[in-house]
Amino acid sequence: MRPFKSTIPIGEARELLRAGVTPIARTEVLPLAAAAGRIAAADVAATIFVPPFSRSAMDGYAVVAEDTLGASRERPVRLRIIERVYTGSTPAHRVTPGSCAEIATGAPLPEGADAVVMVEETSRIDDGQVAVWAEAHPRQNIGRKGADISPGDLVVRRGDFLNPSRLGAIAAVGCPHVEVFAKPRVAILSTGNEVIEPGDPLEPGQIYDVNRFTLAAVAEANGCVPVLRPPARDTLESLHQALDACADADIIIFSGGSSVGERDLLIDLVAARGAIVFHGIAVRPGKPTLFARIGEAPFFGMPGNPTSCLSNAYILLVPFLRGTARLPLYAPRVASARLGRRIAVGAKTAELAGAD
Amino acid sequence: MRPFKSTIPIGEARELLRAGVTPIARTEVLPLAAAAGRIAAADVAATIFVPPFSRSAMDGYAVVAEDTLGASRERPVRLRIIERVYTGSTPAHRVTPGSCAEIATGAPLPEGADAVVMVEETSRIDDGQVAVWAEAHPRQNIGRKGADISPGDLVVRRGDFLNPSRLGAIAAVGCPHVEVFAKPRVAILSTGNEVIEPGDPLEPGQIYDVNRFTLAAVAEANGCVPVLRPPARDTLESLHQALDACADADIIIFSGGSSVGERDLLIDLVAARGAIVFHGIAVRPGKPTLFARIGEAPFFGMPGNPTSCLSNAYILLVPFLRGTARLPLYAPRVASARLGRRIAVGAKTAELAGAD
Repeated sequence: MRPFKSTIPIGEARELLRAGVTPIARTEVLPLAAAAGRIAAADVAATIFVPPFSRSAMDGYAVVAEDTLGASRERPVRLRIIERVYTGSTPAHRVTPGSCAEIATGAPLPEGADAVVMVEETSRIDDGQVAVWAEAHPRQNIGRKGADISPGDLVVRRGDFLNPSRLGAIAAVGCPHVEVFAKPRVAILSTGNEVIEPGDPLEPGQIYDVNRFTLAAVAEANGCVPVLRPPARDTLESLHQALDACADADIIIFSGGSSVGERDLLIDLVAARGAIVFHGIAVRPGKPTLFARIGEAPFFGMPGNPTSCLSNAYILLVPFLRGTARLPLYAPRVASARLGRRIAVGAKTAELAGAD
Repeated sequence: MRPFKSTIPIGEARELLRAGVTPIARTEVLPLAAAAGRIAAADVAATIFVPPFSRSAMDGYAVVAEDTLGASRERPVRLRIIERVYTGSTPAHRVTPGSCAEIATGAPLPEGADAVVMVEETSRIDDGQVAVWAEAHPRQNIGRKGADISPGDLVVRRGDFLNPSRLGAIAAVGCPHVEVFAKPRVAILSTGNEVIEPGDPLEPGQIYDVNRFTLAAVAEANGCVPVLRPPARDTLESLHQALDACADADIIIFSGGSSVGERDLLIDLVAARGAIVFHGIAVRPGKPTLFARIGEAPFFGMPGNPTSCLSNAYILLVPFLRGTARLPLYAPRVASARLGRRIAVGAKTAELAGAD
């Protein structure tokens, strides 16, 4: 057994890890419905206008705004209804002065009309006419063609987190798929002669594998795909075999035996297969933590003690995993109730622009 | 077309929704590795001690503490090494005064020993002896059998969020599976004659379905399984068919046509199949929002306008989804880098108790 010769400060370890992150380059194309929470791997440029046509933002009547000048409840303006425009249809007629078209929310605005009066400001008259009680201002209650998006606009940029609204923007421009960065594959295993699988009978001197499950949960919560491997024994041969089985992983995490003695086995392994970046951190718990490179792959040797392992996973591993997965350092609160509260408060105090 | 007769305040809508939540009762049994972020459906009681035996927390020597009284670098105490205890093995001999056992972190403490001196406080002497430089206190560097968990202890309670440490506790007591509450199935579809699938060619008067994708992302981020259905047309027949296809959903969400006219179709649908709880909220955007019951299933009619729909999803739907899924109202930050920073700072200023 050899003691640690030296340790590095936790800040230095975090800095070395920050510098050691290689953001994932592999990409995949997913259906929109499977892409929530992923990171866009390419810009998405619109090829259409959104909305694709000028349309009504209200149920009501498409009018020539000038016709309604001076309209009030006492002095309503009567307009002749020339057609009813439904959603998904196209208007057959032009609205001319003195006439109007009944129109549904989302239906295309007829030629000639420049405003929509909402149904709540009208009353129907039997003989194909409507009484308008309120002045309409030009462009009122109309969603102009291209008001949201025009061809060439980037609705999503490479590296964007695909939250609900960005997914909605991709859908709005008609893309059924999106190219995203792959989730890093993280191979995880515990080492130790004493470590056995939960569910197996416990012999004297044995304990159940814990770190594999805590580390997997941390990896999954931070944009990675954990690939769980069975425990390895404390022999160089077993460790070499375990490492061979991690060949297609983007990140490799061994935990185990928080001892200096067993660490030395890992050091021998890494010496044979790669290069150590650091070994030993001035932090308690969690001192016996190792970071290395095995070929291109970052290799972590985490403490065997479950508390130490999880604590260092939070301190050291999470930023590394998120960086590799190209996620922001702090998890975005997607659709949190807190955000809801903020919007609700905003909506109470100030009516937001736009349609209902 | 009929205008809204009345609207209710947003707070009242939120209160009605809070009262209307039925936390999911269906459960499923998952392998531990698949249970991260889920909610425990049953208490998990330990049947073993953790650790299952008293063990060394350090690489070093298992000693009789009294032997080391007065030991210092100048006046080391010499002890005879009677065996080496590895992890996963059991000690063959009892440690008696004047003797010690070399011991690895995690290895079972031999009978007779009541302390472990860490290797850094010793030097090896050639003739099977070790010089101890520091006094050992009884119980020093020992993890006592059952120090963490004893048989009968609840390591997880029904309703607990399965974060990494709770999953680790379940693993530690040897359970390979865990019973969790099922994720609520949320059927989601958009209605509207003008709404078509992204990827299909856009005819005049048509727009691409957006809300299906934003709502699915919100449902997924809040503990639910979105089940996406194609858009329904604005006919009672089409809506009935669409509703029939949602028969096995725990929650049903239609969005579409933010118009009063189209809402009326939904009202006719709900009148025929269930009962309205509220229709119309005094909030902009998002007024035309409907909540009803279709049999046991909660039914949402969300605004068709994508901004209104998403805003009301955050305000109204998220708490409802989380409540149904039994998730805490605010997303727990699993393994956040911020927590890591807090631990790191704590570790700098105060050495935490426990092993490395």
